[in-house]
Amino acid sequence: MKQAAVSLLVLLVTLVLVPAISLAEEGMWRPGQLPGLADTLRALDSEVDASALSDLTGHPMNAVIWLGGCSASFVSPQGLVITNHHCAYGSIQQNSSGERNLLEEGFLAEGRAGELPAAPGSRVLVTVAVQDVTRSVLGAVPDGAGPRERYQAIEDRQKALVAGCERDPGHRCRVAAYSGGLEYELIKQLEIRDVRLVHAPALAIGKYGGDIDNWMWPRHTGDYAFYRAYVGPDGKPADFAEENVPYRPRHHLKVSTRGVDTGDLVLVAGYPGSTDRYRLASEVEGVIRWDYPRRIEAFRQWRDIIERAVAGREEKALKYASLQASLNNVIKNYRGMLEGFAKSDILERKRALERDLQAWIETGPASRSRLRTAAADLGKLVAESQSGREAALYYDFLGGRSSLLRAARRLYRLSRERQKPDGQREPGYQERDLARIRERLKRIDRTFDPEVDRACWRQFVLNYSALPAEQHVQAFDDWFGIRPTGLQEAELDRRLDEMYGQTRLGDLETRISWMTATPGDFEASRDPFIRMAVSLYDSDMEREERDKELEGRFEQARPRFMEALIAYNQSRGKSVYPDANSTLRVTYGTVKGYSAKDGIRYLPFTTLRGILEKDTGQEPFNAPVPQLELIRGREFGSYYVKALDSVPVNFLSTLDATGGNSGSPTLNGRGELVGLLFDGNWESIVADWDFIPAITRSIHVDIRYALWIMEHLDGAHHLLSEMGVQDVSADGESGPDQAGR
Amino acid sequence: MKQAAVSLLVLLVTLVLVPAISLAEEGMWRPGQLPGLADTLRALDSEVDASALSDLTGHPMNAVIWLGGCSASFVSPQGLVITNHHCAYGSIQQNSSGERNLLEEGFLAEGRAGELPAAPGSRVLVTVAVQDVTRSVLGAVPDGAGPRERYQAIEDRQKALVAGCERDPGHRCRVAAYSGGLEYELIKQLEIRDVRLVHAPALAIGKYGGDIDNWMWPRHTGDYAFYRAYVGPDGKPADFAEENVPYRPRHHLKVSTRGVDTGDLVLVAGYPGSTDRYRLASEVEGVIRWDYPRRIEAFRQWRDIIERAVAGREEKALKYASLQASLNNVIKNYRGMLEGFAKSDILERKRALERDLQAWIETGPASRSRLRTAAADLGKLVAESQSGREAALYYDFLGGRSSLLRAARRLYRLSRERQKPDGQREPGYQERDLARIRERLKRIDRTFDPEVDRACWRQFVLNYSALPAEQHVQAFDDWFGIRPTGLQEAELDRRLDEMYGQTRLGDLETRISWMTATPGDFEASRDPFIRMAVSLYDSDMEREERDKELEGRFEQARPRFMEALIAYNQSRGKSVYPDANSTLRVTYGTVKGYSAKDGIRYLPFTTLRGILEKDTGQEPFNAPVPQLELIRGREFGSYYVKALDSVPVNFLSTLDATGGNSGSPTLNGRGELVGLLFDGNWESIVADWDFIPAITRSIHVDIRYALWIMEHLDGAHHLLSEMGVQDVSADGESGPDQAGR
Repeated sequence: MKQAAVSLLVLLVTLVLVPAISLAEEGMWRPGQLPGLADTLRALDSEVDASALSDLTGHPMNAVIWLGGCSASFVSPQGLVITNHHCAYGSIQQNSSGERNLLEEGFLAEGRAGELPAAPGSRVLVTVAVQDVTRSVLGAVPDGAGPRERYQAIEDRQKALVAGCERDPGHRCRVAAYSGGLEYELIKQLEIRDVRLVHAPALAIGKYGGDIDNWMWPRHTGDYAFYRAYVGPDGKPADFAEENVPYRPRHHLKVSTRGVDTGDLVLVAGYPGSTDRYRLASEVEGVIRWDYPRRIEAFRQWRDIIERAVAGREEKALKYASLQASLNNVIKNYRGMLEGFAKSDILERKRALERDLQAWIETGPASRSRLRTAAADLGKLVAESQSGREAALYYDFLGGRSSLLRAARRLYRLSRERQKPDGQREPGYQERDLARIRERLKRIDRTFDPEVDRACWRQFVLNYSALPAEQHVQAFDDWFGIRPTGLQEAELDRRLDEMYGQTRLGDLETRISWMTATPGDFEASRDPFIRMAVSLYDSDMEREERDKELEGRFEQARPRFMEALIAYNQSRGKSVYPDANSTLRVTYGTVKGYSAKDGIRYLPFTTLRGILEKDTGQEPFNAPVPQLELIRGREFGSYYVKALDSVPVNFLSTLDATGGNSGSPTLNGRGELVGLLFDGNWESIVADWDFIPAITRSIHVDIRYALWIMEHLDGAHHLLSEMGVQDVSADGESGPDQAGR
Repeated sequence: MKQAAVSLLVLLVTLVLVPAISLAEEGMWRPGQLPGLADTLRALDSEVDASALSDLTGHPMNAVIWLGGCSASFVSPQGLVITNHHCAYGSIQQNSSGERNLLEEGFLAEGRAGELPAAPGSRVLVTVAVQDVTRSVLGAVPDGAGPRERYQAIEDRQKALVAGCERDPGHRCRVAAYSGGLEYELIKQLEIRDVRLVHAPALAIGKYGGDIDNWMWPRHTGDYAFYRAYVGPDGKPADFAEENVPYRPRHHLKVSTRGVDTGDLVLVAGYPGSTDRYRLASEVEGVIRWDYPRRIEAFRQWRDIIERAVAGREEKALKYASLQASLNNVIKNYRGMLEGFAKSDILERKRALERDLQAWIETGPASRSRLRTAAADLGKLVAESQSGREAALYYDFLGGRSSLLRAARRLYRLSRERQKPDGQREPGYQERDLARIRERLKRIDRTFDPEVDRACWRQFVLNYSALPAEQHVQAFDDWFGIRPTGLQEAELDRRLDEMYGQTRLGDLETRISWMTATPGDFEASRDPFIRMAVSLYDSDMEREERDKELEGRFEQARPRFMEALIAYNQSRGKSVYPDANSTLRVTYGTVKGYSAKDGIRYLPFTTLRGILEKDTGQEPFNAPVPQLELIRGREFGSYYVKALDSVPVNFLSTLDATGGNSGSPTLNGRGELVGLLFDGNWESIVADWDFIPAITRSIHVDIRYALWIMEHLDGAHHLLSEMGVQDVSADGESGPDQAGR
């Protein structure tokens, strides 16, 4: 239940930043698994040594970085970073103003001094060490421990490992669980905090096709942008400061101007967020029959309420634009998922696999018999978890969906956690988390309007009140006076009027000041949202305890099922990669089109021609006029590809990717940068659950398109030469210089 | 102006029957031109002798027939005819009733006795002789004749030739003009009047995809149906009668079960209706800038008025369903045309051609100098004709668009024409035309409702009244009391109430009885529509005289321009085919896909897979459930094609075709039937004006799809064996027998 609520939140956040990305040559491999795939890679003409790909401190892996929601890479010795335009979107927006709309116009810093601070909280994370800590984590669980104790022991050991790792200043650490807790790794990342915006094309290039083309092929999006990582004069991570200097990465990627061809090997390294490839049939069925349909329903309602509440009121509309876009995105995604599942035989295949696995266990040697109940045990837990899904959606997720209540709960929780030594606090409330809590409290100013907040929350409370009795939470019912006979709307409105009328949490200073308050301060407060948070606290903690106990049982059951599944697959000669979990992975495939529909073949490359075809002059098909003129005049420069009779714009590959991979460098067989992964295709929208080789494709910006724009349209000659790209027009031979337009 | 009005009428009628069909391997060749193309055909692997294609009495041309709006062919020695489902649509509908909806369910006659009469007026026309009569027609024009005299002399000579030819009973003749009157041919056709419906698949096969897929690729339409031609026991054409016997054609087409492959040669013989490939730039410009935009505007208004007038009233709705569909079709077509023209450089190319042609004439030998003013003279006429286009649209076409006024005008005209000897009457009012006039007067009962008729006409009269003064017609203004200051709507309503209240022309008997009335009877009538027709007659005749004079000038100018153009093309080694004019033509090309958009390739074949993909269970994507089961069960029988891993459904070719070609047999290089042409693709919608090889495609039903349905779904075993097709399931080996479902 907590699981469900958390993953919903993650999804909302992820989808704001990153269009869903899907996979295709199945496998998001841990770097350490690559030597085992050396033969396959050689067969695909890779000149990169497979073992080089498992060395995180060498080339090319050391050049691949994480930005939090997105992936990226270093492309010069001076810390120049390339990622997707949609990954740098917030930073470009942040630096825009009425006078100078960098988002619309694009941005090119004139020299280092002109580079602008990225959005607050922006980070460049370089993975510097990965250590297997499975024994340490699981060894922390006492013999005969119950599920709740097990959960706590694992959490405490993880916190201790992280704390030890973070004693090295300038680093951020985490323990990542693989296969539901079958293995654990301690990951140490250099955390560069001074990140600056260097260059982005105009919105009408970087987001060409907008939401209409999102997930779609053919695609014509110049989804690239440049950051630069800065460190203190001592070479160590530092906050933004004038005297900071560009970070000098140990390795950076070489940009290939030769690009790739149909059938060529491509590799992608990056940080895919989350997949669910090994779920039980019953889990997938629950998602198809319950979760997606109900969420679509609830999210549509949410979106519609916002739409009505902000109609004609620009200031409010601006605050909610991002949430609206995100809800639309999620609704479109879920609908696509349901369409995809409707066409798929995934449940039949999963059930067959589960039967085969069980037969393999039961007919095998006695040593396997301890796995005999693995699938059934997991299945029981899944059923138990599903029985609470109404409350998880309508109470945990939506029922608390007032920005002010969420702030009040988080603040009161913080005051309680702060009573404990740092190492014993709930993750998210430790000293290392305070900056992020403050950041969130600040963000409310940009994303909150009391009227809109109230209108949405009011509806969710009504929805909750209509749930069956056993899904209700007494403390919440008491607060709003919800009785078994239901809820009087007039009574609710009275209560809400009072709460929004009296609270002072709408004020940023006030919110921040509560960060240092004691539990006693909260309990004495008259602020209605604080009072509500206090009154819900005990039952929230009880729910959390139950969730943690359930989680403790999952932490035992899922690894056992995964162990069985992995053994079964290995017995059939099949390697198993773990589900994505925002750790560094490598995937390989080839440049390849696909047949989406009978009678239609999607070609692997799009070209500049398509921009002329699509262009209407209206957003999102409003390419800059000078670009259209360059295309009409066939000013292709050195990026002309004869077979396409044009410059390539985007390409398809069979690579396996998902959200979080956005911005990942796409490498050729020599490890050179040939593109950036930025999306998956619509037909593979269920790929997080189910891998279908015939139609699952990743979508990339062809680096030749980015270079063509930089050279011929944006005049980014100094960046081209910084990347070591031969820039023809730097000699004034061709192309209009439009730097700073 | 008459030209414009007539072509609008033709278009409306044609589009009801026939989705627009477009061309691609340029050339709709007259059979006599084929020996000149023998080398090309041989190079494309044709085993059919090019000279055989010019012999109308031999195989295969003698098997190719005309149904009026559509083409068709004989496929058995017993007069079995195959054509498109949409060409037999009226006949299937006509035989449907509440109890037995043949349209929905499909139809398969149980033996000869079960074959049903086709829709009234259905004809099978077999071209038996074609004679060049250019000398005779042009020789009829007296030396020094003026344009009006010229027009009349040509018309009179044509009528005389037709009358002479039709002295042979059972035949219908016409004189066809080529290249605007550069050449004339007398065409003699056997006219078989007893046509019966033999077999049609269910609507959900024959019209699968409906209007949504119309003009679109990929396509999955089983657009085929079977007729049989019957003649009297003496073998001569006869009216429907019990004792009639199947017509035994001299030749019939052999059906190939092997089908075609990508790249294979295909030939189509049929009766393309009309193209405008040799128009001046100024004519095309007028159509783009004025005709299409204004017609779209007017037709939308018309459609919307009907929509409002029939809303919720089923009986009225049924009467106007066909007109509504046709208006939607035309609007979609015109919008597509405008889109197509917007992307095209046709005007630039036409202007360049006109410049080159002029230069060629002016720099050539003196003999060419008589063509020096050919283009300029035609251009002047075009400009003159365009100056009357408002009146042509809003008076001639829409202003008279009450079914009752049209009937009254036609009847009064008939009474006047009947005063003259038959040979001197206006074409359309001769004895040979009476049956068709009666047919039209009858049809009003099924397509007319006084309220709807009044609502539409009222709007058109208002539109007309708003035209500039010089476009007005005095007699029409007088009738409605239209003054230079405009028209009082109340006055118009009073007048219309009176007219619709008092007329008796809504009654079929009454209308028919007027067919034999004298002009005096009309002039004495009190029926308001008859009185209006009488009062408009003189000025209508004046307008017609002016139109005929203009036409006479066109008949002189256009052939001269065509003569110049043909000579110029020939000097550059280029053969010229004349524009389509509903005469028998042959076109050849290859099976080939195309690239409609950057990044997408349309494949040349669709398969049964696409039906599963498209099917929603809702019209028009509601394939019969047994068909879906056959597809899911992969019961492909002998029609399985390995390369497609399925049965082919439709295919694309580069053939040059247009409306009227619907139902044409598609032949392979051995002259065997491999499909039926039934549509053109959306991207080539401007192909009637402009041939663009890269994107112009014809769409065919693959005969293997028809045979698969007949064998496995509809159990039409006796028809398969009549066509000499090996029918596996006739032995009960496979496939459900669902005859008569």
